Amino acid sequence: MVAVLAGGTGGAKLARGMLDVVGGDELAVIANTGDDVEVYGAHVSPDPDLIAYALAAVLDERGYGISDDTWAVMDGLAWAGRDTWFRLGDRDLALCLMRTELLHAGLRLTEAHAKVVAGLGLSARVLPMTDEPVRTHVRARGRWRAFQEFMIVDGAAGPVEEVELRGVEAARPTPEVLEALAAAEAIVIGPSNPVISIGPILAVPGMRDALAEARAPIVAVSPFVGGRAVKGPTEAFCAHAGIAPSAQGVADAYADVIDGLVADEPVAGLPALELDTLMDTPEARERVAAATLDLARSLAAR
Amino acid sequence: MVAVLAGGTGGAKLARGMLDVVGGDELAVIANTGDDVEVYGAHVSPDPDLIAYALAAVLDERGYGISDDTWAVMDGLAWAGRDTWFRLGDRDLALCLMRTELLHAGLRLTEAHAKVVAGLGLSARVLPMTDEPVRTHVRARGRWRAFQEFMIVDGAAGPVEEVELRGVEAARPTPEVLEALAAAEAIVIGPSNPVISIGPILAVPGMRDALAEARAPIVAVSPFVGGRAVKGPTEAFCAHAGIAPSAQGVADAYADVIDGLVADEPVAGLPALELDTLMDTPEARERVAAATLDLARSLAAR
Repeated sequence: MVAVLAGGTGGAKLARGMLDVVGGDELAVIANTGDDVEVYGAHVSPDPDLIAYALAAVLDERGYGISDDTWAVMDGLAWAGRDTWFRLGDRDLALCLMRTELLHAGLRLTEAHAKVVAGLGLSARVLPMTDEPVRTHVRARGRWRAFQEFMIVDGAAGPVEEVELRGVEAARPTPEVLEALAAAEAIVIGPSNPVISIGPILAVPGMRDALAEARAPIVAVSPFVGGRAVKGPTEAFCAHAGIAPSAQGVADAYADVIDGLVADEPVAGLPALELDTLMDTPEARERVAAATLDLARSLAAR
Repeated sequence: MVAVLAGGTGGAKLARGMLDVVGGDELAVIANTGDDVEVYGAHVSPDPDLIAYALAAVLDERGYGISDDTWAVMDGLAWAGRDTWFRLGDRDLALCLMRTELLHAGLRLTEAHAKVVAGLGLSARVLPMTDEPVRTHVRARGRWRAFQEFMIVDGAAGPVEEVELRGVEAARPTPEVLEALAAAEAIVIGPSNPVISIGPILAVPGMRDALAEARAPIVAVSPFVGGRAVKGPTEAFCAHAGIAPSAQGVADAYADVIDGLVADEPVAGLPALELDTLMDTPEARERVAAATLDLARSLAAR
């Protein structure tokens, strides 16, 4: 069993590569829910969803949503005068509504998202980091914004001044997350944003203890490729958090959590595997996942 | 100002005719909400919606939903394994989500539906009979069903044994409804099902008092045309309620409420106007609406 901690597209790609390596029955992805948002009456879980879509090979190439989706409901909302700043495709929305309906019926987020994942025909599990609401907020240019609004309405315009994970004090890892971490032979921190994707997962009270108590080695994959973040606002958030935009910066940021690092440049101070980490093809993501698993297994054998 | 009490398509057609006669600024339609249902996480208000769609001239010819709508979200739900027994078109769903989002934000149903109506570009008002939840349930063949399930899943298969308006004891007419009734020069009970469309409106505690206190004459239009209900399960419900499926049956059922009746056959015991009440064209519905208003005005002059 392999557990992957993931946020956005980088982590999702690695998770899909890991699915190809170990199979769905052996994979649990622990997903950031700090980006979750209520919009158009629906509970939208951007990271758990894009991870599920990547695993099901239906993720659109823009990095979120479902490929070849349509936009009839967004057109309908716009027709009726509702601002559609948050663009949800019809099929994407259908899955969000399925989850919303189950939440209204009293299911936990973990249970509701599991139905979405099963609906996509997946045997792999995609586990929200917590069932409690955690909402990432960002202060930039003197103004607080919920995460999605900062990203979409403000175009992620920094510099980032402050990040708050509202609700995180009351959050706890779910039983499913704790079980996945305890049962794993390898735990992988995906190449997602250390501050706003992996950061919220690690900030859930009890998560670091669960990672420390897990028998599996913990290996991270650096989100920096060729000295840059592949996608998204990783660099601006790392600058705010004082994390150097490099493999060494990632190694230092995760120093008290990880046993090893995979990156495309050398790092000092911990076991590391240096390889091309760009996952621009199915073969590349499978190769990076396999190498990451190999590193973890070599650390377990020590 | 004209107030029309309405449920399904018959009442909606008359309301649209009345809009053509008096204009949107002079029209308030008081709509049955006993058919409301939560489905796919959305608050669906079938009668208030189909009335609004009829007023906006976008009602599909099947009698509900929006003409030329698409079904991408239903396809998405089915793709993910969700039973889609309740078919909502994408544009129809968009408006339901707009209302749902506003309800979640704390607006009353009246306020939320007003935004939908305004989004359709209407100046007429479509007023839910109450802001409190009232849910019509039907017992047939020994089994209780929520109204939409009885209609769609069970195909309205009777005979109807019992009807319950769950929640109606705690419901009250809204301030908007009371104001519309008090301000009206004519109050019209549309040609909707007397038991499950108009019945719930009249059953809201305080509604009959408000009608009795209104200065305007109250005129009903019989839902029976050529001795039959034009559409829907009106006859089965009337049989259950002991209402003869005729203009006289309607006159008797509303005897303590109305001052006059419009129908296509003679009735005894109250002022009546006999004319062809089939509203199969825009001209016909405007003609019936104008004649109904004339009858009301003649009664007011007495």
